[in-house]
Amino acid sequence: MADSSKVLVFRQMDSKVEEGFWARYSSFKLNELGIDDSPLPITGFFKPCSRDGVPETLTLLTESLSSEPSEKYFSFEGGNRNRCPVPGTLYNSNTMESFRALDRGTLLKNEMGKIWNDIMSGKVEEEPNFLLRFLVISYADLKRWRFHYLFAFPAMDLKPPVELLSLHSASKYLNSEETESLSEALNKWRNSSLTSDVSFFLVCITSNSVVTIKLLKDWKDTQSENCKILYGFYDPSNLQTNPGWPLRNFLSFISLRWKVEKICFLCYRESHGLANMELSLVGEALISISQDWNFPQYVPKAVGWETNMRKLAFKHMSLVESMDPTRLAISAADLNLKLMRWRTLPSLDLNKLSDVKCLLLGAGTLGCQVARMLMAWGIRKMTLVDNGRVAMSNPLRQSLYTLDNCLNGGEMKSSAAVKSLKKIFPAVEAEGISMTIPMPGHPILPQETDHVLEECKQLQNLVSSHDVVFLLTDTRESRWLPTLLCANTNKIVITAALGFDSYLVMRHGAGPHCESVVNSEPNIGDDCKNLEANVEKLSITSGGKEPRLGCYFCNDVVAPIDSLSNRTLDQQCTVTRPGLAPIASSLAVELLVGVLHHPNGLNAPAEHLNSSMDCIDRPLGILPHQIRGSLPQFSQLTLAGKSSDSCTACSSTVVSEYRKRNMDFVLQAINHPTYLEDLTGLTELMEKANSCEVDWDEYNSTDDDI
Amino acid sequence: MADSSKVLVFRQMDSKVEEGFWARYSSFKLNELGIDDSPLPITGFFKPCSRDGVPETLTLLTESLSSEPSEKYFSFEGGNRNRCPVPGTLYNSNTMESFRALDRGTLLKNEMGKIWNDIMSGKVEEEPNFLLRFLVISYADLKRWRFHYLFAFPAMDLKPPVELLSLHSASKYLNSEETESLSEALNKWRNSSLTSDVSFFLVCITSNSVVTIKLLKDWKDTQSENCKILYGFYDPSNLQTNPGWPLRNFLSFISLRWKVEKICFLCYRESHGLANMELSLVGEALISISQDWNFPQYVPKAVGWETNMRKLAFKHMSLVESMDPTRLAISAADLNLKLMRWRTLPSLDLNKLSDVKCLLLGAGTLGCQVARMLMAWGIRKMTLVDNGRVAMSNPLRQSLYTLDNCLNGGEMKSSAAVKSLKKIFPAVEAEGISMTIPMPGHPILPQETDHVLEECKQLQNLVSSHDVVFLLTDTRESRWLPTLLCANTNKIVITAALGFDSYLVMRHGAGPHCESVVNSEPNIGDDCKNLEANVEKLSITSGGKEPRLGCYFCNDVVAPIDSLSNRTLDQQCTVTRPGLAPIASSLAVELLVGVLHHPNGLNAPAEHLNSSMDCIDRPLGILPHQIRGSLPQFSQLTLAGKSSDSCTACSSTVVSEYRKRNMDFVLQAINHPTYLEDLTGLTELMEKANSCEVDWDEYNSTDDDI
Ligand SMILES: [Zn+2]
Ligand SMILES: [Zn+2]
Repeated sequence: MADSSKVLVFRQMDSKVEEGFWARYSSFKLNELGIDDSPLPITGFFKPCSRDGVPETLTLLTESLSSEPSEKYFSFEGGNRNRCPVPGTLYNSNTMESFRALDRGTLLKNEMGKIWNDIMSGKVEEEPNFLLRFLVISYADLKRWRFHYLFAFPAMDLKPPVELLSLHSASKYLNSEETESLSEALNKWRNSSLTSDVSFFLVCITSNSVVTIKLLKDWKDTQSENCKILYGFYDPSNLQTNPGWPLRNFLSFISLRWKVEKICFLCYRESHGLANMELSLVGEALISISQDWNFPQYVPKAVGWETNMRKLAFKHMSLVESMDPTRLAISAADLNLKLMRWRTLPSLDLNKLSDVKCLLLGAGTLGCQVARMLMAWGIRKMTLVDNGRVAMSNPLRQSLYTLDNCLNGGEMKSSAAVKSLKKIFPAVEAEGISMTIPMPGHPILPQETDHVLEECKQLQNLVSSHDVVFLLTDTRESRWLPTLLCANTNKIVITAALGFDSYLVMRHGAGPHCESVVNSEPNIGDDCKNLEANVEKLSITSGGKEPRLGCYFCNDVVAPIDSLSNRTLDQQCTVTRPGLAPIASSLAVELLVGVLHHPNGLNAPAEHLNSSMDCIDRPLGILPHQIRGSLPQFSQLTLAGKSSDSCTACSSTVVSEYRKRNMDFVLQAINHPTYLEDLTGLTELMEKANSCEVDWDEYNSTDDDI
Repeated sequence: MADSSKVLVFRQMDSKVEEGFWARYSSFKLNELGIDDSPLPITGFFKPCSRDGVPETLTLLTESLSSEPSEKYFSFEGGNRNRCPVPGTLYNSNTMESFRALDRGTLLKNEMGKIWNDIMSGKVEEEPNFLLRFLVISYADLKRWRFHYLFAFPAMDLKPPVELLSLHSASKYLNSEETESLSEALNKWRNSSLTSDVSFFLVCITSNSVVTIKLLKDWKDTQSENCKILYGFYDPSNLQTNPGWPLRNFLSFISLRWKVEKICFLCYRESHGLANMELSLVGEALISISQDWNFPQYVPKAVGWETNMRKLAFKHMSLVESMDPTRLAISAADLNLKLMRWRTLPSLDLNKLSDVKCLLLGAGTLGCQVARMLMAWGIRKMTLVDNGRVAMSNPLRQSLYTLDNCLNGGEMKSSAAVKSLKKIFPAVEAEGISMTIPMPGHPILPQETDHVLEECKQLQNLVSSHDVVFLLTDTRESRWLPTLLCANTNKIVITAALGFDSYLVMRHGAGPHCESVVNSEPNIGDDCKNLEANVEKLSITSGGKEPRLGCYFCNDVVAPIDSLSNRTLDQQCTVTRPGLAPIASSLAVELLVGVLHHPNGLNAPAEHLNSSMDCIDRPLGILPHQIRGSLPQFSQLTLAGKSSDSCTACSSTVVSEYRKRNMDFVLQAINHPTYLEDLTGLTELMEKANSCEVDWDEYNSTDDDI
C-alpha cells in the first residue's frame, strides 16, 4: 500500500421512521397479522445527499408497508427521484423478551446472503437497489403504542479493507467539459421516470469528454467502447472525506461480478435538485477479494447494525402523544379482544359482538357489572334503564357509581351509569333511560293511565330496537312485561336473579310464535324461522321435537334450586352476599356470548356438561339453559326447563292475547291482579309478587307523595 | 246551654323534632335494634307558652331517646322548667310500605287506653304529665337519611262537647291581690326543682286572697279547706280565645276521677320566665261525661293525629344536608352490612371484618375486583401493591381505573387504585405501594442487589403488618416469596389464578412451624399454636392427624384441573375470558370471609359439599381448600390438597432455611435458578417459570433500558 493511500471509510447509513409507518403497521398487525410474527417485506426510501452538510437517511414512510404485502417492493411505478425504493425486511417480535432474544447475528447473515445471491446471480444488474437491502427488527408494543426498533444495512466485512487511492470533488477530478457533460447527463438521468430512482449506474466518459450514463446491465457493452468508466451511485453521505454506505456493497459487487480491482467511483450529490459537481466526489479504490469468496455457498461475514457512539442504535417511538385518547382506548380495547381471538378463540366473531344492541333493564349491582362485562367482551351498543337515583349505599356494590353520584339527592342511575361507562371507554354507544317498568297486578289510578301507557310503549320500542334484553331488576313483577315483549318479538333474553347467597342465570327460549316470523336473512334476534325444522335437526336427546326452552316465569324458580339451598330466590330482594352479583353478571354475559356464537342462536337447545361431545368442540364451551349456583356450597350446576303452556309471560295464550289486544291487554294485566291468572289458570305469579318484601332501596319518596 | 255559652275548642298541640333525635335514633337503630321494630319509649318535652303570639310545641330532642331505653321516661332528675317530660312511644316501620300500612286507628286507641287506665287507676295524680302521653309513627329511611313521621296526641272524643261558660285573662278574673299572690306562687312552683316540670296542678285561693299551689294528689285535702280551686296546667297555646290541648284530657280526668262537672281552669302562660297574668287565662267549663264511660273496660273514642289544613300532618326530615358525605357513606355501608347480619347472618362478625388488614399483591383485573369485594364485605384496611402503570387496555377489565388514569404515560396502578377506592368509599384505609416483587430464578446484577434486598425487606414488613395476603399477580414466580413469607409467619393467604377460561381460588394452609408460635391470645394470623391438637380435634374424616393444607406451590396446579380443562393455568397469563376475573375475585373474598368466621381460622380443615353436616350448619357455608371452575363447562368444584414436603415455598426445609439465612437465602433463590431445586429436589418451579409466556403488559420500558 502506497504511503499516500489509506483505508476507505464509509459513512454509515442513517435511518428514519415516520409515524405513519408504525401507524400503518399497527393497524395491519391488528387487523391482518394477529400474532403471526413472520418477517414482513417493507420498502425503504432514500435519495442522494441534496443539502450541504446534511446527510440523507433511509426512511420508512406509510407507503413502506404495502397495503397488500407480498414480494412487491417495486410497485412504485414512474419513479420518484426523491424516493428511491430499497427492499427491506421487518422482523417484529410479539414480546419485548423475544425482541431482546432475537439472534441478530443470524438475521444479519441471512440478509447478507440474499445480497450475495443477488450479486452472484446477476440480479443486481437488473435491480441495482437490491444492493441496499436492509432489515429492521422491532417490538411493537400495541398496548402502549410504543415501538422499539433497530436497523441493519448489511454489508460485506471486507478483508483486507478497501484501499482509497484518491478522493476529490468531481469538478476537480474531471476537466470542465467533462464536468459539464456529466452534470447534464446526470440531471437527465435523475429526471427521467425510467431512471430517476435507479441509484447505481455507469458513467462513460469518451476521450472527447462526452459523458453518457448507462444501466449496470449495459456494463458489458461499455467494455467494448473506448471510454473511461466511473461507477456512480446516489450518495446519501454529506462528507467530503467519506463516501456513503451504498458504495460498500457496490464495490464488492463490481469486484465480484466484473472482477474489477481498481475502481473509479462517483459519489453523486445534488443541490437544489441539480447535480452538484463540487459536492459530488470521484475517488479511486483498490479492492482485493478474499480467496474464500470464490467457494460456492460462501457468504462473507456481514456488518451493518446501525450504531451510535459505538453502541447499537436502538430507537423508540411513541404514537401516544399524536393520538387522541379515545382512539387510543378503542385500539387498546380492540387489541385485547384480538389477542383473545388470535391466541385462543379463532372463531370469536368480534363484529357480531360490536354490532349487537343490548338493553339492560336495571342499573343496580347486576346492571353495573353486566355493562362492564359487555364492554370487556367488545359489545359497544347498550341502553340502560332504571328509575332510581344513586343512593349512599350503592357505590360499594354497584360498580359504576362513586360517592359523587350520591350527593344532592343522587343522580339518576341511568345517566350516572352511562357517564361512568364513557369514562371507562369513551367509544361506548351507551344511552341511559330513566323510566319505570309497568308491573302486572299493580293497579293504577285512572289519571295515571296515559303515563303508564306511554311507559309500555317506550318499553315496546326499546325491546324492538335491541337484539338482546337483560332482565336485571330486583323484583319479579318488573320482569313480566319485558319477558312478554321479548317472547312476542323473539329477542334473546338473559335473566340474572339473586337470592341471599344463591344465583340464577338463564336465557329464555324463543317465543311461541317463532315460526310465524318470515324473514329472509336469519340474524341475531329473529333467526328463528323454521324453528321446528331447527329443533328437529338439533334434537339429540329426544327422538321427537325438541320443546322450546322456558322463560323466567315458566318454571317455578323455587323448586329447581331446592337441591342447592332451602331459601327461595325472591324472598330477599335486597340483601345478598357481595360476591353474588359479580359472579351472576359475569355468567350472564358469558352466556350471551355463547348464544351469539351458537349456530342456532336463540334456538340453541340446552346443553349440559356431558350432553354431547359436539358442544365441547366449540371453543366457548357448552350453552346451558340455566346456571344455578350457591355460595355456601361453592357449587354451580346447569339445568334446563321447557316452556310451560300456562306461563303467564311466554305462553301462546298470553302472547296471542297480547298480539290481539296490545295495550288493552297490558292494562288489564296491570289493573286486574287476577286477570293473568284467569287467562292462564295460574295464581303463582301474584302470590310471589305479594310476598316479596319491599326493598328499602326501592322507594323514592318525594315530599308530597304520602 | 245558655245563649252566652259555647263549645270549648282546644288549640291543637304542635310538634317539633330536632335533628339530634333522628341522629340518635338512627345510630341506635343501626347499632342496637337492627330490624327489630317493636315500639320504643321516648320522651317529649314541652313548656308553657312563653312568648306572646308563639305557641309552644311538644319537642323531641336528642335526649328524648334514652341511651338505655327501658320504661324510664322520667329519668330527668332535678326538673328543668323548660323541658317538662312527657311519655311517648315511637312506632318505627322498616319500610315505607309498612309505614303506610300502619293501622293508625288502633295505635291511637291503644295509647288512649293507657291514658284511660292511668286516669282510672289514679296514676295521673302521681304523674300528671302522663295525661299528655303521645305517639309517633315513622319510617326511618336509613339508606337516604330521610325520616317520615306523624305525631298523635291522644285525647278523648268528648260527646257532648265541653261547654265554655267564660274565658278571661287571669288578671281580669281575679282581684289584684289574688293575681299578685297567684303570680308569686306560680313563680315559686316554676322555680322549684321539685315542681317546675309538673305541668298540671291545683290552685287554691282562700277567701282572703291567699293563693297556694298544690299537687294533684293533694286534691282530697283541698276539699276540706274552704277555698276556691282553679285547675291549672302549663298551656302551650298562645291564643286568648283557646286553651291548649293539655286541658282536654285534664278536664276528662277531673270529671272522671273527681266527678267535678263545672270546672274552673287556669291556663298558665309566661313571659320572660315569669308568670304573666294577662296572657294566662281563667275559664269555666261544663263537662258532662257519657254514661258509657262508666262501664268497666270502656275506652272512649280517641282523636289526636296531628293535622294541618284538615289533612294528616305527615312530616319529613332529611339529615343528608347536615351530614358530611363521608359520614353518610360510612353509615350507608354499615347499614348494608348490618341488614345482612340482621336478616340472614346473625353470626356475621362485622368488627372482625373491619379490623382485618389485607395485603393485595397485584392491582390488575383480580386486584381491582378483590379490593371492591373486600370493601363491600366491610373490610376497611387494605394495601395494594403493584409495579405497573395503568395502560390504555386496562380500564375495560380492571374495574378501578378509567381512561383518565391512562393519560400521559399512565398513573401508577397502586396509587390510582387507592384514589378510586376512596371515591367509592372515602373511609377506606387503603394504601398503594409501587414495588416489584423479587422472583426466584431471575438473577440480578451485582449493582441491583441493594435495591432487591430493600424490596425483599419491604415485602417482609408488609406481610408482617397485615393479617391476610392475597396473591393476585399474573406470574407464578412472583407468588413464591410472599408464599414463603406467609408460611413463615402463618398469615392467611388467598390465591386467585386465571387460565384462559378456568380459574383457581384457594387458601394456603398454615406454615410448617406453626406449633412453634407461642402466643398467648389466639387471633387472626397467628392463632395456630397447638396446631396439632387442633387438627386432631378437627379430624373428622381421617383417624390420625389432619395433614396441613397445601399452598399454591405444593400441588402441581396442572394435574388437578385436568378433569375440567386440558389447558394449564399458567401457560396463558394475559388473555382470559372477561368473566373469569370477577368470578374468581368474588370467590376469593367469600373464601376469606369464610376463613375469618371459621372457629379454627387458618387451621380450618378442608370441607367439601358433602363432607360433614356440621359445616353446613354454619350460615356462611362450607370452607373448601380450593375452588376450581371452568367457564366453557359452567362448572365449579372444590378440591383439597395437603402440603408437600418438597414444596419450594412452604415446606419445612425451605422455611427453616429462610429462618436460618434470611436474605442470603432469598438472594440465592433469586440468583441461582437451580438452588431451590437443589434444596427441595424439585425442578418444577423453574420449568414453569421459564415456560410462562411473558405478558405484553408486564414490560415497562424506559427509553434507556435496552
Ligand atoms: Zn314462560
Ligand atoms: Zn407449599
